[in-house]
Amino acid sequence: MVAKAGSSETGSVETGSAETGSAKAGSAPLRIVLCARESQVPAWLAALRIECVKHGLDAQVSFRDAANDTVEHAALQADVALVWKPPAALFAEQRGLKLVFNLGAGVDALLAMPSFPRDVPLLRLEDAGMSEVLAEYVLAAVLRVYRGFDRYAAQQRAAQWSPLPLRERDDYRVGVLGLGVIGGAIARTLAAHGFAVRGFSRTPRSIHGVMCLAGALDPAAAPCARFLDQLDVLVSVLPLTDANRGALNAALFARLAPGAHLINVGRGAHLVETDLLAALDAGQLGGATLDVFDTEPLPPAHPFWSRPEILVTPHISAITQLAPSAQQVAAKLAAWARGEAVSGQVDRARGY
Amino acid sequence: MVAKAGSSETGSVETGSAETGSAKAGSAPLRIVLCARESQVPAWLAALRIECVKHGLDAQVSFRDAANDTVEHAALQADVALVWKPPAALFAEQRGLKLVFNLGAGVDALLAMPSFPRDVPLLRLEDAGMSEVLAEYVLAAVLRVYRGFDRYAAQQRAAQWSPLPLRERDDYRVGVLGLGVIGGAIARTLAAHGFAVRGFSRTPRSIHGVMCLAGALDPAAAPCARFLDQLDVLVSVLPLTDANRGALNAALFARLAPGAHLINVGRGAHLVETDLLAALDAGQLGGATLDVFDTEPLPPAHPFWSRPEILVTPHISAITQLAPSAQQVAAKLAAWARGEAVSGQVDRARGY
Repeated sequence: MVAKAGSSETGSVETGSAETGSAKAGSAPLRIVLCARESQVPAWLAALRIECVKHGLDAQVSFRDAANDTVEHAALQADVALVWKPPAALFAEQRGLKLVFNLGAGVDALLAMPSFPRDVPLLRLEDAGMSEVLAEYVLAAVLRVYRGFDRYAAQQRAAQWSPLPLRERDDYRVGVLGLGVIGGAIARTLAAHGFAVRGFSRTPRSIHGVMCLAGALDPAAAPCARFLDQLDVLVSVLPLTDANRGALNAALFARLAPGAHLINVGRGAHLVETDLLAALDAGQLGGATLDVFDTEPLPPAHPFWSRPEILVTPHISAITQLAPSAQQVAAKLAAWARGEAVSGQVDRARGY
Repeated sequence: MVAKAGSSETGSVETGSAETGSAKAGSAPLRIVLCARESQVPAWLAALRIECVKHGLDAQVSFRDAANDTVEHAALQADVALVWKPPAALFAEQRGLKLVFNLGAGVDALLAMPSFPRDVPLLRLEDAGMSEVLAEYVLAAVLRVYRGFDRYAAQQRAAQWSPLPLRERDDYRVGVLGLGVIGGAIARTLAAHGFAVRGFSRTPRSIHGVMCLAGALDPAAAPCARFLDQLDVLVSVLPLTDANRGALNAALFARLAPGAHLINVGRGAHLVETDLLAALDAGQLGGATLDVFDTEPLPPAHPFWSRPEILVTPHISAITQLAPSAQQVAAKLAAWARGEAVSGQVDRARGY
């Protein structure tokens, strides 16, 4: 199956009777445009068909290559757009959208797009297997630092044999900044492993085994300062908003334990890159594991590449997992088509 | 408290009534010599005193600096020696030993010592918190490889941004060679994380969620070949015996998946170092995480230091944990003093 920009694939499936009465029973199929990378389309289409049948959703799916940013004459005017890094041209083509569903957790790039329709509800994937994969990345990064693999690698470069003391796990302070579905899963995973975990969020949360604090993301304010105080590792999984852009800065680093490690799996724009380099030079931070960057791919001349204290990974901490994602998309579209409320709608004012 | 070679510390404690009747009730206290590094002695002595009281064991403890290998005139002729890397001189001094207790899991160095008395029973620490620490080291190493941190570090040195596919965890084959208390804990930890775990041991074992195979450690023989076949990661936690010296060699590596990763937390003498380097050069192995070496500390000119595919750690994967170790020592000595059978006795013929 080959996907071409603007080409139409009638993925219409005849559904049996839905379990609950459908407000649209007998009406035309739901028209969906799937905008993704061409290589991803066949698998998505196959998974969506199965899940639409399972959820009693009569749908017709066309697809559009996300790599093409010229305005095309769309073969199908869709009710719903399923998007993964869509081009601006999509929203110039599709004028009748009633819903946009982002096939990922982060919607900052979408909201920043001038062509994105202001009055159309926006859903985003909630978890769908991502949180487990992301929590595993963070666990791998924390264990690497906790067990000194990064420092032993530095010793190795100097042919130096020097055992380091192993701290008690329950005295090793790890902070998780952002406690949504993904941040919560990260905090729970780290707490289950035995670390002393703190969490911080805008609105109060409660997670078993985690000291949760809430308030404004201001290192000088009491709840935030208490969260940051002497952390050995800080994990940021914040969504990007105007309010928290540049939040990972010198003032915040100064609150952490000397030699602390920063793990950023949120967005690159949270990090003030020059502040990170200065903190590493000063020893305020001991290292960083970075999966997201202000510019991606990270440019070849960027100073992060050549810093041995920084591990650069190419935005692979979370991977949208097809099967659970397609299941979630179909379930939510079916509920939405029945006129029911669905979770995961983006609050435009809040930005996530 | 300062420990001096040959000095005597009367750590005799008056015990209350032991819970079970003691064969030695009313007899002289058990005379113990603790032979360890001077820096470790105060903490050991304090922990042993508490545990001897708890276990109703009347003991008198002297200590001897393990760093001193000249024969001294011992102040106390002991019944029991508690040893951590003891010098040969210890066994020339102590001629009346009825029991030796090794404060670690590996006894190969002790058994290889000509002065070590052949007719005295040898106990070794079983677990005592070590297995959890060692399983964590292995989990950290497997996650590092599974999530591509080592390959991303290599890409980083070339300023290369290139996401790698993430394999399914239940299709990622990890083999654990050696299924004693520690190997079993490693296998269970990896299986709980979702990896496809196989285990191999000399005698048959059964571990929930792990495919256990048993037999001779011979890559050409059926059970062993089946264990090794296409493993993505091989973890060796073998005890060192004459039979398995050099077992990690070219013939074994050839059975693993191309680009497999070797983790050695057993003993350095298992590994044929030139075979490892050749397998890395040929791409048969993709990397190795080595915590144990034939010569420790690893000599400054050793080729392992400068291989980016090898992570060298300075024998830190397992750390004898004082509190649970002292608890185990006291419990076993109390049982032994009462004439009861105790587990953890080394089989001289088998070598562990």
